[in-house]
Amino acid sequence: MDLAFVLYPNLTALDLIGPYEVLGHQPDVTVHFVAETRQPVTADAGLIITPTVTFDELDRADVIVVPGTGTWRDPLEAGVVTAWLRRVHPTATWTTSVCTGSTLLAAAGILTGRPATTHWAVRDALAGLGAVVSTDRVVRDGSVVTAAGVSAGIDMALTLVGLIWGDDRAKFTQLVIEYAPEPPYDAGSPETAPAGMVAFARSAVGGFPS
Amino acid sequence: MDLAFVLYPNLTALDLIGPYEVLGHQPDVTVHFVAETRQPVTADAGLIITPTVTFDELDRADVIVVPGTGTWRDPLEAGVVTAWLRRVHPTATWTTSVCTGSTLLAAAGILTGRPATTHWAVRDALAGLGAVVSTDRVVRDGSVVTAAGVSAGIDMALTLVGLIWGDDRAKFTQLVIEYAPEPPYDAGSPETAPAGMVAFARSAVGGFPS
Repeated sequence: MDLAFVLYPNLTALDLIGPYEVLGHQPDVTVHFVAETRQPVTADAGLIITPTVTFDELDRADVIVVPGTGTWRDPLEAGVVTAWLRRVHPTATWTTSVCTGSTLLAAAGILTGRPATTHWAVRDALAGLGAVVSTDRVVRDGSVVTAAGVSAGIDMALTLVGLIWGDDRAKFTQLVIEYAPEPPYDAGSPETAPAGMVAFARSAVGGFPS
Repeated sequence: MDLAFVLYPNLTALDLIGPYEVLGHQPDVTVHFVAETRQPVTADAGLIITPTVTFDELDRADVIVVPGTGTWRDPLEAGVVTAWLRRVHPTATWTTSVCTGSTLLAAAGILTGRPATTHWAVRDALAGLGAVVSTDRVVRDGSVVTAAGVSAGIDMALTLVGLIWGDDRAKFTQLVIEYAPEPPYDAGSPETAPAGMVAFARSAVGGFPS
């Protein structure tokens, strides 16, 4: 089973590495990091990742994981990524996104009229791109699974492991990554964080219309 | 403020990238990925990361983050890492570990007689290396902060942001990474997972005495 983790400059690393850690150790998987070229890609805060394959070289994958970024000014700038998504999504078994990666799926036409979720700060932007936006943390619609912001990729990937390999394998994975979260604060959603903080965070998740 | 994220072959990527995402966007930080050489390092399931600096070149850091791995046969094999930890820990403001990274701190003599936590499957191994092992998810003892397995690095790093930059900054970070976890199963700790699964997972977290 081929897993394709999409790379592009300034991607939010945890969007990608949450699902990578959950999916990458499953039986009989091959992990690909796919990008425009094989040159190393620098993520949001300086992490440098080397692609293993290019968009031109990878014609299909069983699972596609598209991370988000806080620094797209316009999702349509990401034409290389969306062109690849248009090409490979029709034969993929699962097409997934984390955080604002949903806007890349939407720009590729994959979310038109479909239920989907995204980072809370860009729900309006995603709706503007044609998706039926949900506030759920993980949304599955047929072969498309979307996750809310950043850390939600872990929940999405565990859900996906359950769908592909079954509940026991997903529980085993959860146990191995000791995913019994204890956030030290209760500010992880716009409903629980202070209102002023929500407004500031919305403006800080750069460049999206809101 | 210099943040040093330690790289070595087969490290568990999420151990490192959880804290990276939480700490790497704070004000006035410089993110370093430090390894034995500047050659790319391959993590557990194929992620290839390029170091930005070598152990020889980096003499100090304000925050050190040491990830774990499922594939050390003997923590003492990691002599290059532990030698660097012995050298830089005395002048670091915070020395931290995630998952079995704690065994590297212990092998460097940093945890002797100190309270610390680790991946649930290697608690006995960590105790054997001289730490006073806790089952808590995050343990702070002076300048040393340790986290339980893999995903616990996110909780640890948010705790650390609170200690360094204050509660409001930590809450803001939690909001930006939308860390309102909803695990799809309740199997993230040995207390909640099926007993047979716990035994199998213990043997799968490779090579540690248990």
